[in-house]
Amino acid sequence: MTTLLILDPQADAYNAFVQNADLPGLQVMLATDPSELPEDTALAEVVLASPRLLVGALPRLTRLRWAQSTWAGVEALLADGLPRDYLLSGVKGVFGNQMAEYTLCYMLAHERQVIQRSDSQRRGVWDHRIPGKLAGKHAVFLGLGSIGAECALRCRHFGMRTSAVTRSGSPSALVDKHFSVDQLAQAVIEADYLVMSLPGTAETRHLVDAQILGALPSHAVIINVGRGESLDEQALVSALEAGQLAGAVLDVFEREPLPPGHALWTCPGVIVTAHTSAVSFVEDIAPLFLANLRRYLAGDKPDYLVDFARGY
Amino acid sequence: MTTLLILDPQADAYNAFVQNADLPGLQVMLATDPSELPEDTALAEVVLASPRLLVGALPRLTRLRWAQSTWAGVEALLADGLPRDYLLSGVKGVFGNQMAEYTLCYMLAHERQVIQRSDSQRRGVWDHRIPGKLAGKHAVFLGLGSIGAECALRCRHFGMRTSAVTRSGSPSALVDKHFSVDQLAQAVIEADYLVMSLPGTAETRHLVDAQILGALPSHAVIINVGRGESLDEQALVSALEAGQLAGAVLDVFEREPLPPGHALWTCPGVIVTAHTSAVSFVEDIAPLFLANLRRYLAGDKPDYLVDFARGY
Repeated sequence: MTTLLILDPQADAYNAFVQNADLPGLQVMLATDPSELPEDTALAEVVLASPRLLVGALPRLTRLRWAQSTWAGVEALLADGLPRDYLLSGVKGVFGNQMAEYTLCYMLAHERQVIQRSDSQRRGVWDHRIPGKLAGKHAVFLGLGSIGAECALRCRHFGMRTSAVTRSGSPSALVDKHFSVDQLAQAVIEADYLVMSLPGTAETRHLVDAQILGALPSHAVIINVGRGESLDEQALVSALEAGQLAGAVLDVFEREPLPPGHALWTCPGVIVTAHTSAVSFVEDIAPLFLANLRRYLAGDKPDYLVDFARGY
Repeated sequence: MTTLLILDPQADAYNAFVQNADLPGLQVMLATDPSELPEDTALAEVVLASPRLLVGALPRLTRLRWAQSTWAGVEALLADGLPRDYLLSGVKGVFGNQMAEYTLCYMLAHERQVIQRSDSQRRGVWDHRIPGKLAGKHAVFLGLGSIGAECALRCRHFGMRTSAVTRSGSPSALVDKHFSVDQLAQAVIEADYLVMSLPGTAETRHLVDAQILGALPSHAVIINVGRGESLDEQALVSALEAGQLAGAVLDVFEREPLPPGHALWTCPGVIVTAHTSAVSFVEDIAPLFLANLRRYLAGDKPDYLVDFARGY
């Protein structure tokens, strides 16, 4: 008998998928919040959980062997002092598509001045300014994991040139040019768009700082779908106010929700979205978990394991 | 000796391309407006011109044999009473890319609620509503010429399902399902997006009328990058006000510029753009003209000839 705890606001929806899979010898407990944990929580050997909620449940999960996150971001579970004596699986492959739609959406909206034209419409103005086009533009990807790769593929479909900056700097068929992280300042010199999809680690903290921002062309736009910490927000505000770059499309921030009155809300050229570039749809996450659960029950290692030391 | 008249607001820029091509036996005259035509305009055998400007020059072009339009829309030259005793070339293949960027831009902006989220940002609101996604959605193309085809290809890249409604209804590898025009009401039943790229002819006038609008699902969005006349605007306003469909992205109108106070400016769900989904960049049109001019000078028929009777 294996006991599974599902700890997520959508626990019922996840449970429907689990019940439907009809796995023998599996007992399931449900909770939508750590305050609602069942009495026999300690029995759980496997957990499917939102990372922030799992943090609150860890003290009671004395028999935990494997946890599957329902979200890509697992930073909450990497904090100092939390137990690391269990396997932790992240989510891979299901967010790339949504993040690529987000990235291309805001690239195209920038070229086509969608928001400015909408303002013209509200004023009843026939706005015949000339639009830009993506074809021929240059996208530089900082990070080329499954998310960056999906974005790069779509950019190629639009006839864009592509470069990647990665730890290894090793070639990928998805991009025209490759740089290692220490060549970042050089890599961004010709960027029309800098697309950031980095994990939140000590190594990536403020990787894009005043120096890198200064190296970008003044017509460039930054798009960050990774982690807010990898971009120095104060340096970004200064660079935008000084006209050193044209804009920034930010889905992630050093503090979330972005605090009221923060300069980024009103900084020229900034688009703020509320960490919604990719969301966990149960219908996407549940099949990934079930495939992993079958592996676990068969005695194999689950996929998408997080390296606690590396941070992703 | 062949005499060429360039009649376009960007005549100088076009002439730079022509001079650079260094074609023997070619004499060039320039004008940016019919009011500025040179004295010996009658000598022109070949004209490169914006259609609206060419209408004003036709009475003086008594030796005209071939005219190359600088724009896709040649309706102005098809009006009753105008001469048709010359070859007229349209522009093909150079606008598809821009119109595909326009179409995908506004599809993605609709899914991602770009304008609504921008309004949230202006109010300082952390807007975490769930976005939609294009993957899996269904685009129905009314017209599958070079523009519709380019749009369909991009939709496929985003994992969308595609259908086409064409005169012949004959299969194309770019779409999953094919319909003839008399099956239009049936074809739109499952549409998430109806993309119109029809030429402006008697046959296409008000092809999308109250009946077709009523057949669309209430969550559907119309995108019209073809000609305004193919969509019954009054029926569209009624359908949108009644919630029969979710929106319309309109780059073309029955009257352009869209008159002040017209209901479409403020109709719920309508995006108005000012016939800018694709614009004639000299660097795109000049090479097409020069290739055609070389054909003409060699005694061959130019490409992209307009059938005056058919209207495109």
